[in-house]
Amino acid sequence: MKVLGNGYVELLESMGDDLAIVNAARKSFDTESKEFSDKDRKLLRYMWDNKHTSPFEMVEFKFAVKAPLFVVRQWQRHRTWSYNEVSRRYTSNNLDFHIPAELRFQSKENKQASSCETLSKNKNNDLNKLIRKHIRNSITIYNKMIDEGVCREQARMVLPQNMMVEMVAKVDLSNLIKFLKLRNHPHAQLEIQEYAREIENIITQIVPETMKLYYKSNAKK
Amino acid sequence: MKVLGNGYVELLESMGDDLAIVNAARKSFDTESKEFSDKDRKLLRYMWDNKHTSPFEMVEFKFAVKAPLFVVRQWQRHRTWSYNEVSRRYTSNNLDFHIPAELRFQSKENKQASSCETLSKNKNNDLNKLIRKHIRNSITIYNKMIDEGVCREQARMVLPQNMMVEMVAKVDLSNLIKFLKLRNHPHAQLEIQEYAREIENIITQIVPETMKLYYKSNAKK
Amino acid sequence: MKVLGNGYVELLESMGDDLAIVNAARKSFDTESKEFSDKDRKLLRYMWDNKHTSPFEMVEFKFAVKAPLFVVRQWQRHRTWSYNEVSRRYTSNNLDFHIPAELRFQSKENKQASSCETLSKNKNNDLNKLIRKHIRNSITIYNKMIDEGVCREQARMVLPQNMMVEMVAKVDLSNLIKFLKLRNHPHAQLEIQEYAREIENIITQIVPETMKLYYKSNAKK
Amino acid sequence: MKVLGNGYVELLESMGDDLAIVNAARKSFDTESKEFSDKDRKLLRYMWDNKHTSPFEMVEFKFAVKAPLFVVRQWQRHRTWSYNEVSRRYTSNNLDFHIPAELRFQSKENKQASSCETLSKNKNNDLNKLIRKHIRNSITIYNKMIDEGVCREQARMVLPQNMMVEMVAKVDLSNLIKFLKLRNHPHAQLEIQEYAREIENIITQIVPETMKLYYKSNAKK
Repeated sequence: MKVLGNGYVELLESMGDDLAIVNAARKSFDTESKEFSDKDRKLLRYMWDNKHTSPFEMVEFKFAVKAPLFVVRQWQRHRTWSYNEVSRRYTSNNLDFHIPAELRFQSKENKQASSCETLSKNKNNDLNKLIRKHIRNSITIYNKMIDEGVCREQARMVLPQNMMVEMVAKVDLSNLIKFLKLRNHPHAQLEIQEYAREIENIITQIVPETMKLYYKSNAKK
Repeated sequence: MKVLGNGYVELLESMGDDLAIVNAARKSFDTESKEFSDKDRKLLRYMWDNKHTSPFEMVEFKFAVKAPLFVVRQWQRHRTWSYNEVSRRYTSNNLDFHIPAELRFQSKENKQASSCETLSKNKNNDLNKLIRKHIRNSITIYNKMIDEGVCREQARMVLPQNMMVEMVAKVDLSNLIKFLKLRNHPHAQLEIQEYAREIENIITQIVPETMKLYYKSNAKK
Repeated sequence: MKVLGNGYVELLESMGDDLAIVNAARKSFDTESKEFSDKDRKLLRYMWDNKHTSPFEMVEFKFAVKAPLFVVRQWQRHRTWSYNEVSRRYTSNNLDFHIPAELRFQSKENKQASSCETLSKNKNNDLNKLIRKHIRNSITIYNKMIDEGVCREQARMVLPQNMMVEMVAKVDLSNLIKFLKLRNHPHAQLEIQEYAREIENIITQIVPETMKLYYKSNAKK
Repeated sequence: MKVLGNGYVELLESMGDDLAIVNAARKSFDTESKEFSDKDRKLLRYMWDNKHTSPFEMVEFKFAVKAPLFVVRQWQRHRTWSYNEVSRRYTSNNLDFHIPAELRFQSKENKQASSCETLSKNKNNDLNKLIRKHIRNSITIYNKMIDEGVCREQARMVLPQNMMVEMVAKVDLSNLIKFLKLRNHPHAQLEIQEYAREIENIITQIVPETMKLYYKSNAKK
């Protein structure tokens, strides 16, 4: 479940499955299914195709995540999740930073994106060294401020945005699918795409029937 | 778990407990607690007292509910829950209605509430008979319309607002506590208070430490 | 702005327009547009096509609505709106009810919907009389309970679900568009479709460029 | 409306006022007030005291904000706002950074906060120079990466967290009050407190009666 080298996404807990979705939709508690049947599959597809999203809200996932600050910032724009993150007001320990394996060129067509091409190995190595040195310098300045007694909430301002952030993040399946459609998408930044794909793998174990519909609807486009 | 005679509230599924709240708050995954300790109790109280509500969002409950329409209407004003209810567009079966055990007088002080006093046994019986007859008449008219081929979505308009509604309702602990504070409150309608108290009993089994703080904070007022 | 005879939807207040959407998206406050240009139109279409919905949240509408209870119930399932409604716990005045102009047959294909065909004029008249009589009976029983001193919050339980409800309802443009796509849709109940179409007419005055994109995307399907 | 030197918060647009709150609560459109009266004041206070928050949702504010990244991160944890911010995936222009006027000591009592005491003038000057130099170095590395063709979405990772961020942020009054109670609070970071106080000043012009209740309830604690 490693992502981006020193990051990760891990399922801590979940509630419900494909059957729970279908049974919430039926709501006729006497006739609810005990096992996922072909009839349930048909109902699930009907709800998916007709955007009856509320039964998909009945399944819940809680993840532990470690990701670069710039990824967490994109993630937390999704306001239907619950978040708890390690606060840098509270601790100066366990500083960790993202080092890019490859640097990508700016896209020529899309002002907001990167291209698929990466810099030459040499250029990449040179800039990588520069980034590593910059991280070391940043930590030195940070530690100097902490040593002088500066409060953590101010001292952190010198740390660069590839700082790794740890959080617990909880969401229901309906809103998770919206997240995945936006974040495992060519327009999204490659780094958050990797987290999205890892989440797809994880939840396919829990809601395989729903994820079949998800993959099929992605393939159509 | 019966409420109001023919209604009920029942826990279908839940995710997380007191320990999950505290561990989400710590977010230092290495040092997380395995068992709820005195230190955890102290942290839980600190978060409660200082309104750090986000860790309480990490616990989730899914209920099956059957309640009169006028109660469901008050319930669904809470927009942080997920709901799936049996639609009267879809089925004309299993019609069921709330019969009040006791009728209360209008409050003299609060324009919006009922008083604690109830009507005399005789008056109560007379009006009860009237209500039962009204329900029978309503069903007769409804069935006549259905028999003539009228669509269910229109025919239901003649059914009175004590019609029982079944739903699946899911919410996190933080928002459930806000619900309970408003709905197990003397200003709330007595009928929804009964559902709120039943929910308090149910979740005390799951998050006993949090509910101790809840009961204590209610007692203070 | 009359809907369904004795109902209505009326714009009370709004904030923002097409230009506000585009300028929020630019966020470069120096170079913001003063008038909606072709460049703005291009940006608006780009955001619409790529589901960049957040700038559309920057426009806000506040409506006064009067609608049958069964329509209001469907409306209030949309949890991104703010609602204030006249409470029947508070007042026993101004009771008003929806009388259907035409009764529709149950659909044969869709278990949840009505067909386009309506009952014969004679059948319609007969059932209409029955509904009117039922309303009168319901009011008589309600008033009897009120006269006996029964609290309003209980007495209302005998009133049928075609009771008219008045509310103030506020929403941003992005979530209003989701509402319109679901509610001015052949699967939605005809009665709420009429409110949705009226809202489309109203907001086309405020955000004409966005509504062009909306109508175009509906036409494609 | 300047905050923290090179930051600001500015009201772009608003909808509604004290009267709109009261009239939404009355919802009896015939008897609505034209001018804010003593009766309205009494109703407003009743709703405030009894936490009838929904009428306060009927007023809406849209702000332009420029704030350090670490402040914006705290701000955006409030999920009831709408946000649009200048994306560093999109532009490499107008880089600007927060320079702290004063550095505060770490609090001894509260692990999460700063103390009221600030570092000596000399220490402050020394560290200030260090921060300024660090910013210049960070910009140099950033520009080098941009010059080599590295995509903006990756290059930004080297920029420190005192980078200034510009955004449009919209919220209703009820949720804004929750924000202000948490953020103009001694437990909040001093920097975001300054934005909260500036917002209090701004909206007191729009909803003076509500803000009287707000200030009074703060004074009680």
